[in-house]
Amino acid sequence: MTRHVPHLYLPGPYEPGRIGVVESTRLHLEKVLRNLGPVAVTYTDGEGLSGSGVYFGGWIERGAEEIQERGHPVTIAVSPPKNKSRARFVVEKLAEMGVARLLWLATARTEGRMPRVEKSALWAQAALEQSRGSWLMEVSGPVAVSDMGRFGSVLLADPHGVGIDDIVVPEDAILCVGPEGGFAPDELPEVVGKLRLARNLLRVETAALVGAALLTHKASS
Amino acid sequence: MTRHVPHLYLPGPYEPGRIGVVESTRLHLEKVLRNLGPVAVTYTDGEGLSGSGVYFGGWIERGAEEIQERGHPVTIAVSPPKNKSRARFVVEKLAEMGVARLLWLATARTEGRMPRVEKSALWAQAALEQSRGSWLMEVSGPVAVSDMGRFGSVLLADPHGVGIDDIVVPEDAILCVGPEGGFAPDELPEVVGKLRLARNLLRVETAALVGAALLTHKASS
Repeated sequence: MTRHVPHLYLPGPYEPGRIGVVESTRLHLEKVLRNLGPVAVTYTDGEGLSGSGVYFGGWIERGAEEIQERGHPVTIAVSPPKNKSRARFVVEKLAEMGVARLLWLATARTEGRMPRVEKSALWAQAALEQSRGSWLMEVSGPVAVSDMGRFGSVLLADPHGVGIDDIVVPEDAILCVGPEGGFAPDELPEVVGKLRLARNLLRVETAALVGAALLTHKASS
Repeated sequence: MTRHVPHLYLPGPYEPGRIGVVESTRLHLEKVLRNLGPVAVTYTDGEGLSGSGVYFGGWIERGAEEIQERGHPVTIAVSPPKNKSRARFVVEKLAEMGVARLLWLATARTEGRMPRVEKSALWAQAALEQSRGSWLMEVSGPVAVSDMGRFGSVLLADPHGVGIDDIVVPEDAILCVGPEGGFAPDELPEVVGKLRLARNLLRVETAALVGAALLTHKASS
């Protein structure tokens, strides 16, 4: 059961031979492992590199490493849900699923407070470690509806749209999940298509997750 | 914006003409709506019927009704996550997505407490109302691994499995999400296939949601 080997996010670039870990990681490891002797760990730089090494006294001896190719990068723009735990959930789940980038979308009818990007990044790092991934999800925002076009072609999650098999997904697609109250008439985004994710009306966080699952699947097939 | 019209789960069968609502629903409606006059509502019996009506003083005048056909029913069996809020999340999200049936799976390494089926049913009802659906998700359990076969053919969520496009999904498939520690050697379920849901290792609740999204999509395409 490899799950008891801790998987650590350690930003690169690395020096040859060994990697120094920051104090907070050291304390966490020594507390969790309750073991001050050498211990096997895996690590990633969040940019595709992952390796197996040995941790001891604040340093990791680098061992076998490999580069995991990134799949087609999926970007999701989401108007934050009302409740903070649901916002955290969006970050955590999308990061586990290997989404490349999350944009927090600021709209006139956004009900939730805008999550801090620094906090979101920490949630994404924890999910990267938890899911033993090699690519860290990037989180940006707040992004205004009118600025989304700078990041790619907007595909709108819309109950009146079409199914994913009936739509062309551009290479640079951003799946945009608006607020539950809808966009205000004067801020409607320019979109290249409208995608229906389910029969029922989905909450913001559910739409983001289902959309991410379908786009990731479509991109890889 | 139809979202301000409350959507109510009212179990059938209904009398002709009007439906009496139970006391808790009446109190909830009158508190939420802050309006004791007649008010437009929609309702569903959770078995495909949905209608528009008018609520007043504990009764709903039935109006136009329609039957929504059920899509191919998806069943997910899940070993409950450790944390109760994550268990609730599984119920809520699967219900929003229109999953037909959730089985709480009891395994040797299940970390979470077994959620009460009555409580899970209430979460599913709230999600049905929230998502304005017409089909109530059924929740059963605890189900032992050895009993899963009674409910259908088991497809195991497994990081070493194959992608959904490379697998035959039987009509009566149950997607089974085991505990994060894996099944004990003496309780391995008999499976008809192993399905890989993502590149990364997913938490129990994430695997359930991604699996539900992919199976629902495959069933409808």
